[in-house]
Amino acid sequence: MRCLTEGISLPREPYFAGPGIDRADALRNRPEAVAALLGQPDARSLGWDSGAPKIDSTGGLVWGAVSGDEQLFLGLDDGAPRFASLPAADDAVGPRARFAILGQLDAVDAPLFAAALSLASWHQRHAYCSLCGSPSNIIRGGWARRCGSCNGEHYPRVDPVVIMLATFDDRLLLGRQPQYPPERYSALAGYVEPGETIEAAVARELGEEAGIAVTDVRYITSQPWPFPSSLMIGCTATATGDALTIDRQELDDARWFTRNEVAGALAGEPNAAFLAPPHFAIARTLIDHWLGDA
Amino acid sequence: MRCLTEGISLPREPYFAGPGIDRADALRNRPEAVAALLGQPDARSLGWDSGAPKIDSTGGLVWGAVSGDEQLFLGLDDGAPRFASLPAADDAVGPRARFAILGQLDAVDAPLFAAALSLASWHQRHAYCSLCGSPSNIIRGGWARRCGSCNGEHYPRVDPVVIMLATFDDRLLLGRQPQYPPERYSALAGYVEPGETIEAAVARELGEEAGIAVTDVRYITSQPWPFPSSLMIGCTATATGDALTIDRQELDDARWFTRNEVAGALAGEPNAAFLAPPHFAIARTLIDHWLGDA
Repeated sequence: MRCLTEGISLPREPYFAGPGIDRADALRNRPEAVAALLGQPDARSLGWDSGAPKIDSTGGLVWGAVSGDEQLFLGLDDGAPRFASLPAADDAVGPRARFAILGQLDAVDAPLFAAALSLASWHQRHAYCSLCGSPSNIIRGGWARRCGSCNGEHYPRVDPVVIMLATFDDRLLLGRQPQYPPERYSALAGYVEPGETIEAAVARELGEEAGIAVTDVRYITSQPWPFPSSLMIGCTATATGDALTIDRQELDDARWFTRNEVAGALAGEPNAAFLAPPHFAIARTLIDHWLGDA
Repeated sequence: MRCLTEGISLPREPYFAGPGIDRADALRNRPEAVAALLGQPDARSLGWDSGAPKIDSTGGLVWGAVSGDEQLFLGLDDGAPRFASLPAADDAVGPRARFAILGQLDAVDAPLFAAALSLASWHQRHAYCSLCGSPSNIIRGGWARRCGSCNGEHYPRVDPVVIMLATFDDRLLLGRQPQYPPERYSALAGYVEPGETIEAAVARELGEEAGIAVTDVRYITSQPWPFPSSLMIGCTATATGDALTIDRQELDDARWFTRNEVAGALAGEPNAAFLAPPHFAIARTLIDHWLGDA
């Protein structure tokens, strides 16, 4: 499926945004159907390695035999059931170190990796019922948990995050988080809060982090980001002025970059004004889109 | 702030999407600042009535004196601190009956109502730590909880939901959920799952519920929906055909409506083909937008 925005295609779909497989969600709610899927000879399950789904040297997901009852049903790949096991309790899910392998997966594997990692992270953090404190159990093929005591049901989280490029006078606002590699600048971002629209969250975050006001906000594209379970909502916004008041608790720096500076950074020029975000980040997709949209 | 989409303004911003007040989130992380705000003479707090923030007969939020320590800091209204209390444990938050009062609040009160209701619902369902099962305590002015035993921190949920109009040959696909009033048809909707983009969730839900495939998806606008804490992400999509396979577990019915039929329903004509969704629903905003976009 093409992602159409403002009537144009993006130069490239964001990483993790591939077609995936048929999630076959109607089967999840039928325990006998899930049991039958687990027993199919063509069923396969993802294993874990250092807190992420295992990937081989060619950048493909590694599928093995299904073993154990606690399996997360990811869907059907041409009819063949695909599961993920749960990682061992001492194998903490989703370390930043796994960023090293990002960008290698193809468009079918990448969203499976994302779904398995987010779902497993959620199970690792939700062994107990938040309503009563008792242990809970996996139900619905891994897409929910039910409390063994109060019967409360709990569903996986997806945390919406706005990530945005503010523009002013054909310049782009980018910022540096303290943990970035040297010279890296990228789009500002923040969680959408209860009671907020996407547009309000974009305006609030730009106000808080950079001290700018914006008059309009446009949605560009989205990306699942499984560290642990964000939905990145990529936007642009037009600033009403270029004076910055930077929140130094959140950012090392924020600056306006000209179109030439951005083009140089995307081309990887040795003396570029900044180091562009990597291709697997939606920030890169947004910057590519802005540069191509002249 | 105007919500610009495809270069045009919406006829009306979705309900709950008003400007709100300054959330002043930097203050939340400083316990001494929150304590000082609680003690300010101009501080006010929202009370509860039948599971929702109290509203007076003119449709305004009812603010009272701040009492008790467990207060949720909503922000600053022209510098005056605004809080919400927590509802009594037996006052279940967010019953559908409160729909009756929707649509009455102004553009400042509506997002405050939404934020308070979603935040309070989350606290009611998260008294215990999901990591270890021990009781947790309110921190950060009500915007997080910390476990008294393992120190695990937990943040309020916002659940992204896609809600969309599929179109084919200048007709609109609308469906009926079993709990709707008679004759009501509205946009189809569903939760975004871990590992999915907005665009993939729209395509999946339309495939599951109506059996149609779509070739492109466009974002239109968004709305917070505090029952209990959804972020409604409004989209349109173009179907590749009009043959429907309806999931009767989810929907009573789904049908294609012509432009004339939609116009009659929005005008409230007595013999209209269907009863349009109410003005406070983002589905209505989407349908208004489609009809005006000819």
